[in-house]
Amino acid sequence: MFSKILVANRGEIAIRIIRACKEMGISTVAVFSEADRDALHVSLADESYCIGPAPAAESYLNMAAIITAAVSSGASAIHPGYGFLSENPVFASLCEKCNIKFIGPSSSVIAKMGDKDMARRTMKAAGVSVIPGTEILNTLAEARSEAARIGYPVLLKARSGGGGKGIRLVRQESELENAFNMARNEASASFLDGALYLEKFIDSAKHIETQILTDNKGKTVVLGERECSIQYRNQKLIEESPSCAVSDELRGRLIKMSQAAAFAVGYCNAGTIECLLDKNGNVYFMEMNTRLQVEHGVTEMVSGVDIVKWQIRIAAGLPLTFSQDDVRCSKCAIECRINAVNPHNNFMPSCGKVSLLHIPGGPWVRFDSALYQNYVIPPYYDSMIAKIIVCGGTREEAIRKMQAALCELVIEGIDHNADFLADILSSKEFGTGDYYTNFLVKREGGNVV
Amino acid sequence: MFSKILVANRGEIAIRIIRACKEMGISTVAVFSEADRDALHVSLADESYCIGPAPAAESYLNMAAIITAAVSSGASAIHPGYGFLSENPVFASLCEKCNIKFIGPSSSVIAKMGDKDMARRTMKAAGVSVIPGTEILNTLAEARSEAARIGYPVLLKARSGGGGKGIRLVRQESELENAFNMARNEASASFLDGALYLEKFIDSAKHIETQILTDNKGKTVVLGERECSIQYRNQKLIEESPSCAVSDELRGRLIKMSQAAAFAVGYCNAGTIECLLDKNGNVYFMEMNTRLQVEHGVTEMVSGVDIVKWQIRIAAGLPLTFSQDDVRCSKCAIECRINAVNPHNNFMPSCGKVSLLHIPGGPWVRFDSALYQNYVIPPYYDSMIAKIIVCGGTREEAIRKMQAALCELVIEGIDHNADFLADILSSKEFGTGDYYTNFLVKREGGNVV
Repeated sequence: MFSKILVANRGEIAIRIIRACKEMGISTVAVFSEADRDALHVSLADESYCIGPAPAAESYLNMAAIITAAVSSGASAIHPGYGFLSENPVFASLCEKCNIKFIGPSSSVIAKMGDKDMARRTMKAAGVSVIPGTEILNTLAEARSEAARIGYPVLLKARSGGGGKGIRLVRQESELENAFNMARNEASASFLDGALYLEKFIDSAKHIETQILTDNKGKTVVLGERECSIQYRNQKLIEESPSCAVSDELRGRLIKMSQAAAFAVGYCNAGTIECLLDKNGNVYFMEMNTRLQVEHGVTEMVSGVDIVKWQIRIAAGLPLTFSQDDVRCSKCAIECRINAVNPHNNFMPSCGKVSLLHIPGGPWVRFDSALYQNYVIPPYYDSMIAKIIVCGGTREEAIRKMQAALCELVIEGIDHNADFLADILSSKEFGTGDYYTNFLVKREGGNVV
Repeated sequence: MFSKILVANRGEIAIRIIRACKEMGISTVAVFSEADRDALHVSLADESYCIGPAPAAESYLNMAAIITAAVSSGASAIHPGYGFLSENPVFASLCEKCNIKFIGPSSSVIAKMGDKDMARRTMKAAGVSVIPGTEILNTLAEARSEAARIGYPVLLKARSGGGGKGIRLVRQESELENAFNMARNEASASFLDGALYLEKFIDSAKHIETQILTDNKGKTVVLGERECSIQYRNQKLIEESPSCAVSDELRGRLIKMSQAAAFAVGYCNAGTIECLLDKNGNVYFMEMNTRLQVEHGVTEMVSGVDIVKWQIRIAAGLPLTFSQDDVRCSKCAIECRINAVNPHNNFMPSCGKVSLLHIPGGPWVRFDSALYQNYVIPPYYDSMIAKIIVCGGTREEAIRKMQAALCELVIEGIDHNADFLADILSSKEFGTGDYYTNFLVKREGGNVV
């Protein structure tokens, strides 16, 4: 087992990883930007290194600085968390070359799944259903003829996309040219890769994903599914497990499909397979995330499995000590992402001093956050400032528990979305489970993507 | 099911009960003393009533005021929590007469188990082992001859005792007279009942208790055991489940014994059977607590069963929906009681304003408390201000998680015992499980009782 791990991230996920290390008796090294000197992850780690100024490109994305911190501190492994360098094959490869264990799959697997076109082709070859779509489009003319073949509406997607960027919905041919140019420009700017492809747009679909753990013997255990259909601008807001749209029969199919997918790419470590579920019960592979997800805690609460600790154990070469048959998810868990945004002003990010903080507690209420009383939220990073995860014996109980927890939460001094989330939880659609990825768009009468 | 419940308590347990009600769709009525106007349980309840001045005798023990609040608010049930009126048969009987459901066993069962002498005799008759001891002692001379028969050391105990009061250890005959007089005076003053009895003193014993749920069909399910041997002046400080001293064989015996005990007294609702376990594996019944315990959360974390909700369901006449065979306690949970006391000054209670509060979070960390930023702890009540409960896959993991949680906890402005608890957790004895109820006394070189 590693004796010291560097955590190449910030915020709640850095703290999540530091806590896991502490419980495993592993020393922790934090890295931080100049804007994060007073961040909680810095004070919770055993040692910490400043890796540059606030813009992520100069600190949390600064591979050389992070590797240097790992080498200087004697850390033998790096946990990348999510975002930042977590799905960067160059960074994973750099770690491999420096003899530092990257806690995640190999750089070649990350590269293969990061290229969405290649991921689709790999999955298709493994017999996994993918959404009807195209290869990389070279020209607008090609996009036009392919879209006509697939049938409108279609989605234009960036090969290197992520976080909802580089995606455009095209309802009819007249919209195609404009969308093509905008998506290409956005993708070039965000990912330095303007390559696009087309997918059939599936309306009223649910976002269903499976959480897998694969050890280096190739054994894959699927820790059930999560439904993440409540999204705002392609960012997940509320996640739950199990999904009320997934029957035992469908769950069985999802498990088989996930195991086949993991096997097809030679996967190792924790990963997530994201799918769309249409109204007819058809499941289509969308993409694989080769890292820890924000919403992993939902699965932890229903399965009782500590995913972060297993990431570390698997990276250290330890085999999974349980099998698919041991996985019992008998409860219902829900996560709400608390974002520092103003829901009454177009979800404008908010920052500044948290002048009063009160955290919900009690049984089966988990609060993951880097907030503390008087903390000053810097303007440079993602707006997610906390996650509330609850678990109940039934879905109804879990919903009520979350509503009570959101009621108890007090964060003063900044804007946040707790009331907005509570409204969604009280909606008829959420209560009955009859909601789809277009829920918020339909509710606000806006555009689908 | 009840539509409205009055919570006849304060602090963290009132909040625990209010949360359970909210999740069950039940309205809540809080009661509060004049000193508790700004207490958190008041603001979390749907409505609240002031029931008198700060001394508990004039508010939280004021039966008429509480019943009046229940009648005025239309509450059809009262949850007494722990302490205060929770084991008062007169109050339970008053509720019964007013047609308000007392959430707990019947007043006659409470009375039977509250009289420790009668409880011992009832259990003995049911074939449950009790510690060798006597009936009620009428005179000092009787105490002297009985002590000689049982053999020193012996414990002098008050029939109506509780919370560690009215107990004296007597190591030899020369100490008997003084101890007899002191225990009688203390018991008279505390419980208006000076009746005493003698028990054989068992050295190096473990405090083991079982958590039972019995429905009104007489079905009893035992949710495993808790070990509560870390005590200071007969007050529990750290509790865990399972106990490392309890083998599967012994657990089987404890379950049978607990079921027999519940049956013998015609029990209904949640209860706790407290036992001593000697070094030879003998289990002796000590007493039965006919109410929710402070440490119930430890059992909730390992069993996944919400004890408070089951108390409410059972009181409403619903049957248990699971059986003994369904109880699976595969994890390890530990609770630490955070008390506002000064461990460096004879555990003197501390009160005043909480100027800074930071609460530990993350997976499988539960924080039950009525604290909030800037809350002013009043001087009138029990010093327990928070409970941290954690759960791990192994005992070692749970200990580490608790140590990390205690490290993360910040409560400024008052004295508290978090560091003292962390020291106990790091001791060799706690680590190996080789600790007994005399642990803290031996550690500090003081008297056993």
